[in-house]
Amino acid sequence: MNVIVQKYGGSSLADALKIKSVARRIIKAREKGDRVVVVASAMGDTTDELVELALQITDQPDKREMDCLLSTGELVSCALLAMALKSMGYPAVSLSGAQAGIITEKAYGAARILRVDPARIQRELEAGHIVIVAGFQGITDDTTDVTTLGRGGSNTTAVALAAALGARVCEMYTDVEGVFTADPRIVPEAVKLREIGFEEMLEMATYGSNVLHNRSVELAELYNIPILVASSFVEAPGTLIHGGIPMEVRNKVRGITQDLNVAQITVVGVPDKPGVAAALFEPLAKAGISVDTIVQTASIDRVAELTFTVAKNDMKKAMEIVEPAARAAGARKVTADASMAKVSIVGTGMQNTPGYAARMFRILSEKGINIELITTSEIRITVIIAADKVNEAVRALHKGFELEKV
Amino acid sequence: MNVIVQKYGGSSLADALKIKSVARRIIKAREKGDRVVVVASAMGDTTDELVELALQITDQPDKREMDCLLSTGELVSCALLAMALKSMGYPAVSLSGAQAGIITEKAYGAARILRVDPARIQRELEAGHIVIVAGFQGITDDTTDVTTLGRGGSNTTAVALAAALGARVCEMYTDVEGVFTADPRIVPEAVKLREIGFEEMLEMATYGSNVLHNRSVELAELYNIPILVASSFVEAPGTLIHGGIPMEVRNKVRGITQDLNVAQITVVGVPDKPGVAAALFEPLAKAGISVDTIVQTASIDRVAELTFTVAKNDMKKAMEIVEPAARAAGARKVTADASMAKVSIVGTGMQNTPGYAARMFRILSEKGINIELITTSEIRITVIIAADKVNEAVRALHKGFELEKV
Repeated sequence: MNVIVQKYGGSSLADALKIKSVARRIIKAREKGDRVVVVASAMGDTTDELVELALQITDQPDKREMDCLLSTGELVSCALLAMALKSMGYPAVSLSGAQAGIITEKAYGAARILRVDPARIQRELEAGHIVIVAGFQGITDDTTDVTTLGRGGSNTTAVALAAALGARVCEMYTDVEGVFTADPRIVPEAVKLREIGFEEMLEMATYGSNVLHNRSVELAELYNIPILVASSFVEAPGTLIHGGIPMEVRNKVRGITQDLNVAQITVVGVPDKPGVAAALFEPLAKAGISVDTIVQTASIDRVAELTFTVAKNDMKKAMEIVEPAARAAGARKVTADASMAKVSIVGTGMQNTPGYAARMFRILSEKGINIELITTSEIRITVIIAADKVNEAVRALHKGFELEKV
Repeated sequence: MNVIVQKYGGSSLADALKIKSVARRIIKAREKGDRVVVVASAMGDTTDELVELALQITDQPDKREMDCLLSTGELVSCALLAMALKSMGYPAVSLSGAQAGIITEKAYGAARILRVDPARIQRELEAGHIVIVAGFQGITDDTTDVTTLGRGGSNTTAVALAAALGARVCEMYTDVEGVFTADPRIVPEAVKLREIGFEEMLEMATYGSNVLHNRSVELAELYNIPILVASSFVEAPGTLIHGGIPMEVRNKVRGITQDLNVAQITVVGVPDKPGVAAALFEPLAKAGISVDTIVQTASIDRVAELTFTVAKNDMKKAMEIVEPAARAAGARKVTADASMAKVSIVGTGMQNTPGYAARMFRILSEKGINIELITTSEIRITVIIAADKVNEAVRALHKGFELEKV
């Protein structure tokens, strides 16, 4: 018998009516003959409310206790969902992350899953139960403490369970209908993709699409678990993310993403000698600040300009680190600009096919949009532009690459 | 080093400010040099709110899932309390019932504790931690499922831990200042008792005092753990409940209690032959209805009258069972009255000392209060009277037995 894993997000479980509606959706899957494992997030804004409660106690809540606290949100939604299923006549059982065998490292707040011990789930499935597992949480390897998985946690739980159980698909039900060629709030003509490759989805997730966190997509690619993203509110086919998409048969640009969480830092007058870049970036890494795009201009008279981006809320801290380090290295000055954004075009078909970058730059220049920085991967081209030009850029690129005709 | 167990009720933990205030109280105990284990109830009305949520899903929530749901309330308060202590510079750790080794039978909603495995708590205490344990919950013997302990659960957790850890005292902090000679809302002159014996407290708890559930008092008596009941809101000495009180040195009546949750059922014209009482009470027992006081009038011409009491909300169900059974046994009719109440006087000193009952009945008759039924134990006399006479009866007895002079 096939196993499928379904994951329901917090907005799909926000109140008793929505929980009952999700229960009916689960029953439909069960009636098709699959064994069903469900991963549930906390109801609605529960997690935010618990964080708020902790901050009323102390502005620096202990991380172990924070995980104990936050893990209760998913226990509540799981118990209610199991109750709903049982009241509708379907045997069900709710399990905590610990009971479900989600074993993690001992890193509170952002634990990575070490392994899944699916014995209990398998026993419950064999007994005919629909198994409801609390997402976002696990237990340390020595089984002494509850952990939470951090951002994208419930999706990661779902994919990890799908891998451990050999599920044929991992269905993620959320408040959007799938993956679109661009954000429909910016581009009304944006089209829902029927399917997309893991790598493309990874690039889109990393460069601004909020549909899935890249962590769960990476895990799905690693174990080759197809992910279906669909809405829990409407009956409509979603987007299937999988590894088996032939490269040549489709429009070469698959999606356009934007990311407004970008600050740009420029070090002017960097002496062009070995070790300067290391002197700047090592202390940033030690402070836990992720540096994204890095571009160094050609050296004129052994003096270069170094520009890089960080997340907006890291900008202040980054400047405190970079300014003294740059001065010590002999740089002239350091400037920062928090009003930047990234716009990316993504598509496997771009691989080994020239001309995409040129076409992208021409579309933007025709709109008078200035490009500050450019970075690329094999299947993605990203430009950094002024934040107030983002919507115009995304619309122009969507039209220019004819994505409405997907 | 001495271990003490402190238990804080839900009203003592109702919001962040109150939790921080409880943390400061715990720190005071710690500063006295004791190792401190704290049992916490769920914050304020959390448990009621979770029950309400479950009833929005289904009017007959599954019991296993209900326990999963309700157990989250205590996890939240424990995590917040541990955070508060840590933010004040004191090492602390919160533990679920399962982590604390509270092993129960597999009876959801009202599980009894089978044993406590205190290894984890002892390890944490030895590491210098203040240990915060979720009250009201445990884990089944096969460690597969969460259970809750039912009424008086957190107090029971506290006494069980005190017994397992060899604590010198179990302190229960609540919203009342201790055990009074009578309910101060009825008798303004009621006096807080400095100490009271286990058996007296048991009788008072069973016959209407709401300060402690008799379950935790029974357990404390069994393991000879002194219980201190005190307010978490004011600094005032509470009442010490223990086993070492000399019988002769005090006022013989220690307290007066009332219980309004009484319905009286009378079977009129019962044929006085063997097996009739069994025919009535066996089906009630099977239906899970507790029958309290039973009185049969003297038989005249082999026809008797049988009167007994049940809890008010059991009355309708009890009548549905008793009426056909009584008819089948040849009884004439069955009447029920939900407006009854019990008033009791309790005191170890009453044992082997005649005259208390006579004095009680005289005090009541002087007020024109009619006694319907009488039951006694060695240290208690209970009368059943009309509910609307209760306050007058309690006041008259408090004055008549001079309890304000305790």
